[in-house]
Amino acid sequence: MGRLTAGGTEVLTPAFMPVGTRGVVKAVSPEEVWGLGYRMILANAYHLYLRPGHELVERHGGLHRFMDWPGSILTDSGGFQVFSLARLRKINDEGVVFQSHIDGSSHLFTPELSVQVQEGLGSDIIMCLDDVRGYPVTKEEALEAVIRTGNWAERCLRSKKTVDPALFGIVQGSVFSDLRKLSTESLTSLDLDGYAVGGLSVGEPHDIMVEMLEVTVPLLPEGAPRYVMGVGKPQDILDGVLRGVDLFDCVLPTRNARNGMLFTSRGPVNIRNARHADDPEPVDMCCTCPLCVNYSRAYLRHLFQEKEIYGLRLATIHNLSFYSRMMDRIRDAVRDNKLRSFAGEFSAKMEETDD
Amino acid sequence: MGRLTAGGTEVLTPAFMPVGTRGVVKAVSPEEVWGLGYRMILANAYHLYLRPGHELVERHGGLHRFMDWPGSILTDSGGFQVFSLARLRKINDEGVVFQSHIDGSSHLFTPELSVQVQEGLGSDIIMCLDDVRGYPVTKEEALEAVIRTGNWAERCLRSKKTVDPALFGIVQGSVFSDLRKLSTESLTSLDLDGYAVGGLSVGEPHDIMVEMLEVTVPLLPEGAPRYVMGVGKPQDILDGVLRGVDLFDCVLPTRNARNGMLFTSRGPVNIRNARHADDPEPVDMCCTCPLCVNYSRAYLRHLFQEKEIYGLRLATIHNLSFYSRMMDRIRDAVRDNKLRSFAGEFSAKMEETDD
Repeated sequence: MGRLTAGGTEVLTPAFMPVGTRGVVKAVSPEEVWGLGYRMILANAYHLYLRPGHELVERHGGLHRFMDWPGSILTDSGGFQVFSLARLRKINDEGVVFQSHIDGSSHLFTPELSVQVQEGLGSDIIMCLDDVRGYPVTKEEALEAVIRTGNWAERCLRSKKTVDPALFGIVQGSVFSDLRKLSTESLTSLDLDGYAVGGLSVGEPHDIMVEMLEVTVPLLPEGAPRYVMGVGKPQDILDGVLRGVDLFDCVLPTRNARNGMLFTSRGPVNIRNARHADDPEPVDMCCTCPLCVNYSRAYLRHLFQEKEIYGLRLATIHNLSFYSRMMDRIRDAVRDNKLRSFAGEFSAKMEETDD
Repeated sequence: MGRLTAGGTEVLTPAFMPVGTRGVVKAVSPEEVWGLGYRMILANAYHLYLRPGHELVERHGGLHRFMDWPGSILTDSGGFQVFSLARLRKINDEGVVFQSHIDGSSHLFTPELSVQVQEGLGSDIIMCLDDVRGYPVTKEEALEAVIRTGNWAERCLRSKKTVDPALFGIVQGSVFSDLRKLSTESLTSLDLDGYAVGGLSVGEPHDIMVEMLEVTVPLLPEGAPRYVMGVGKPQDILDGVLRGVDLFDCVLPTRNARNGMLFTSRGPVNIRNARHADDPEPVDMCCTCPLCVNYSRAYLRHLFQEKEIYGLRLATIHNLSFYSRMMDRIRDAVRDNKLRSFAGEFSAKMEETDD
């Protein structure tokens, strides 16, 4: 277990961060996110740079104030979004030229600009711009990304104007153990505030993802937070914690909620399924969230059938509540030195299916 | 001023009811609606009959429990929705045959079925099925609707199985004063619990609407609540209260909110407008709702630009807050015998435009 203090807020680790890409965790209020126990969220520099613009957010007192979030904010550097969303990317040592996925406008994102954007947003933890590749890639390409990511991290560190935000580096190296090691060394030599294992969840098999964690995490400094970006499924989080990871973020609980997929202690429930139409039971008998305390499956299904906005909110609250309780239990298990047996039981229960 | 007790909840009149067509006030929680001061909402028998079905709602303990609403519920009879939404209507003395706007299935709605549906939903105030006509209609047609509406009200009264819900009749007669009088007489002879002035807001000029209120309301029994359905704009509500109307409902505050149109003490604001993009001020300086206390116009506009669900909720809360405070002030003005001067000042302010 750990305590991470960022922007004056204490976050207990291992921690999961809900994703608030555009300065809002989709379908819920900051109060609800806080009330569910979350103290840190992730926002995306790429999206907020394009709209409404980091300079606008800065003029309005920074993202915390703009979106009324009292906790910590970690921002992604934009590297992954340029890789996954933007069109006509052209990457070179200077930075990455891309066309906005919104209006096609052309932009040059550099390590310096990424830091400037994230500092403008007023993030508590900022990420170094990295060179993200897909899966599979050749070792040659992966090496190029490792070298560039290291150089960019150095430029990020140099261009940081304020002391306050923590700066995390992102380890690359695709599925090559020796490149992961190389990337880790180049970043840890900079003595950054924390380290992410990047370039995972891009299509590689689960086993390989776990293997790369096993290769990388032990090489990271003991006292620095370790973060796996864009992960993940409950099983992936358990696998990460078992290998020493402290921080996770993923759109899964919120996006699944909006698609009617609810996590429960007895496996996933698709609330759109006709079998729930007349079901007076709550989504999860073991859950104490507002959805499960106040409403039946039948009502939630009705809201989804009718495309009622309130259904998206209730489902999101439920899934975020599920993740929050899961992290509570994971931390308890770590403290009690029972993580391995907890992980086994939890996974078995999750594989039951209630749907 | 009045006190209307329905289903154990006391409602101060004149009152405005938010519309919860499908068993939810769009984009907000029952807790939020209650917290804004509302004690009675409207739901639609037509929609809930089609989906999820009144029998299902009844099995689940009635609409209050299904949707977790602690206040009163008034249900519309379905007459207006059949008139405005359904296809291939065929109306005769027995009832109205229509095709569902959802799946084209054929249904016969009778006064008896309308009462059965509303009783199944567990409404506190149920409305008689009425024969609704558009504007303009011939006097002959309007007379037919008046006679049929009277006969149907009698059948509704006879078919009511439980004592609990109040039964309101709906005065028809289009824009013909003598037909309004005839309709009022036929309904008041049944000694119903309350009366609505129906067939308004269907396209007739504002002056004629007001004239019909002036003709009809004085003919209604003093002690019975008077309700104008589907009204309306702040000005229409003021005009109604000035003529003795106690109850109003309208989708305007909630629907406008979802379109980015916000009511303020200084006229309407269209938050999508580019001029709000960089505006750090709240939507309404005089408003104490969560939107105006916590967020800038710039942030709300950003949420609308990005089609973020949370924006719809904040805007809805704001508009419902505006209506709630407006009704508070209207009741204060009635009590202090200052309604006419209040109405004048209020209207003048609303005509300023901040946009």
